[in-house]
Amino acid sequence: MNIRLLISTLCIFALSTLCSSWSLAQDPLPSWNDGKTKQAILSFVERVTDESSTDFVPPAERIATFDNDGTLWSEKPAYFQLLFIVDRVKSLSAEHPEWQHTEPFASILKGDLHSVAASGKPGLMKLFAATHAGMTVDEFSETVTTWLETSRHPSSGKRYDEMIYQPMLELLSYLRANGFKTYIVSGGGIEFMRPWAYAAYGIPPEQVVGSSLKLKYEVRDGTPVLVKLPEVDLIDDKEGKPVGIQSHIGRRPIFAGGNSDGDYQMMQWTTAGEGSRFALLVHHTDADREWAYDKDSAIGKLDKGLQDAAAQGWTVVDMKADWKTIYPWE
Amino acid sequence: MNIRLLISTLCIFALSTLCSSWSLAQDPLPSWNDGKTKQAILSFVERVTDESSTDFVPPAERIATFDNDGTLWSEKPAYFQLLFIVDRVKSLSAEHPEWQHTEPFASILKGDLHSVAASGKPGLMKLFAATHAGMTVDEFSETVTTWLETSRHPSSGKRYDEMIYQPMLELLSYLRANGFKTYIVSGGGIEFMRPWAYAAYGIPPEQVVGSSLKLKYEVRDGTPVLVKLPEVDLIDDKEGKPVGIQSHIGRRPIFAGGNSDGDYQMMQWTTAGEGSRFALLVHHTDADREWAYDKDSAIGKLDKGLQDAAAQGWTVVDMKADWKTIYPWE
Repeated sequence: MNIRLLISTLCIFALSTLCSSWSLAQDPLPSWNDGKTKQAILSFVERVTDESSTDFVPPAERIATFDNDGTLWSEKPAYFQLLFIVDRVKSLSAEHPEWQHTEPFASILKGDLHSVAASGKPGLMKLFAATHAGMTVDEFSETVTTWLETSRHPSSGKRYDEMIYQPMLELLSYLRANGFKTYIVSGGGIEFMRPWAYAAYGIPPEQVVGSSLKLKYEVRDGTPVLVKLPEVDLIDDKEGKPVGIQSHIGRRPIFAGGNSDGDYQMMQWTTAGEGSRFALLVHHTDADREWAYDKDSAIGKLDKGLQDAAAQGWTVVDMKADWKTIYPWE
Repeated sequence: MNIRLLISTLCIFALSTLCSSWSLAQDPLPSWNDGKTKQAILSFVERVTDESSTDFVPPAERIATFDNDGTLWSEKPAYFQLLFIVDRVKSLSAEHPEWQHTEPFASILKGDLHSVAASGKPGLMKLFAATHAGMTVDEFSETVTTWLETSRHPSSGKRYDEMIYQPMLELLSYLRANGFKTYIVSGGGIEFMRPWAYAAYGIPPEQVVGSSLKLKYEVRDGTPVLVKLPEVDLIDDKEGKPVGIQSHIGRRPIFAGGNSDGDYQMMQWTTAGEGSRFALLVHHTDADREWAYDKDSAIGKLDKGLQDAAAQGWTVVDMKADWKTIYPWE
């Protein structure tokens, strides 16, 4: 290292130390009520970033992974990606008169989501194949962006990408300000989330992990394209989450946030690692400001996670008690 | 943005501007001979980082992807991962007396790599299954690390992770100093490269893309593990490279480096994007200091890429003429 580089490195170090003491003077999590949940988060981050602590973790290993549906944004009345699919089926139905008599399309066109759910995995795969596959990745991305711009959430009337949780935005920023790399690890589609995750959460496309269809590279009329095939590549849910994490990140997270039993294995994998680890489980307890549901909900079912949280040392967020604000626009 | 944050941001900006003018005063690519190849690289990086240029690319989109075998390190007398497999077969053979009479194991044990190559894809899959699958990701990583520590390259006598190209190390550093995120996108195994890529190239595990076996998450005696299955997940070669790039990065690179026809599609995908793009093709022309080979080589075959480079606007590195030094230890 030459002298100039050394001096500038020292200056930058001095400045960043100043910056971090300034920001510490402010509350980094203003939408979190004071209490043991907030305190547990602050204490963890202080320990892993304190070089004199036995819990210190070098910045490169500060990986934090977050589920999306129900953890970073709402998931009621149904997963927003399912509502996107419903809208896609409706807009494509003119080209597919046969859908009026073919399940699960007929049920969707009648507005009967119950029967869609009852069609199970084969039904869902038909929907994915009809609404996602065959398109290029770029075409799909534009479709998602247009849908977000033109659609509104049925109960709030807000854009879907405004149905995000203010306390979680603060947590993501706080972690990043402390050297963490923040990732989405969601059962939702990877290409469904990438177009808007940076604007909504500050998470770039390369830090989004999700369920995916297989892709095929081909040259169409001289132009190379990547086409989505009607074949599942990864279901990034339950046991699939640690697999998605290893495939994309290649390191075990030290912080994981989730809200349903689909996140159980990600939290288990995270906290089974050596050293200090943190798992955050968002419990939807606020029927007035958001929704209240857990073990009996078809969407975002949380049962085993809640039973085991105490024994596993996971921190449960009581949305009603812990969150001062739910959405940024409140 | 509050005033304190604004001031510190401005200070950091001023300092980094100073730092970059200091480093510009030095030659960022000292192991590259002056000439049109080096000039093309420098000119590209200056244009995409100059905010007043029409070729300017925001830092977040400065993605650079590099093949590994033959591009960042040598690949002769055979892909180093194949030599690793040979060593693994030898060390596991005591537990597998049947391998003395089963192909492709018998050929390996006799030192006959030609017959191994002749066993084709099914033979190679048997080798991968026997030497890679069944292990946990952590066990495999330790095996690779131990092998690197105890093995030496047959002609140089150096560690395999010392058979890396000094000019490419400088290029990686130069790109990163200019806001690029550097990735490996290799036909080699993702978990084979991750354990040493950071020490060798400054590329962290989450920026390594490679061929992979499917993984399975399971809890063994209360301990969660990720097990490698004897089933291919991705062959990250040829058409597989743009697929691996989209899956892991979700953005199209603006810079790609390769050396063989296995990199053709990655370079095609990169340079077909809008705006200024750069593709670098390393041509092995130095039989004295490294190896000289192209269209007739079984390993690292380069034929179509060399034919099309001029028409595609790709920059060909003539190793003998363009590189002052090959290895860091010279």
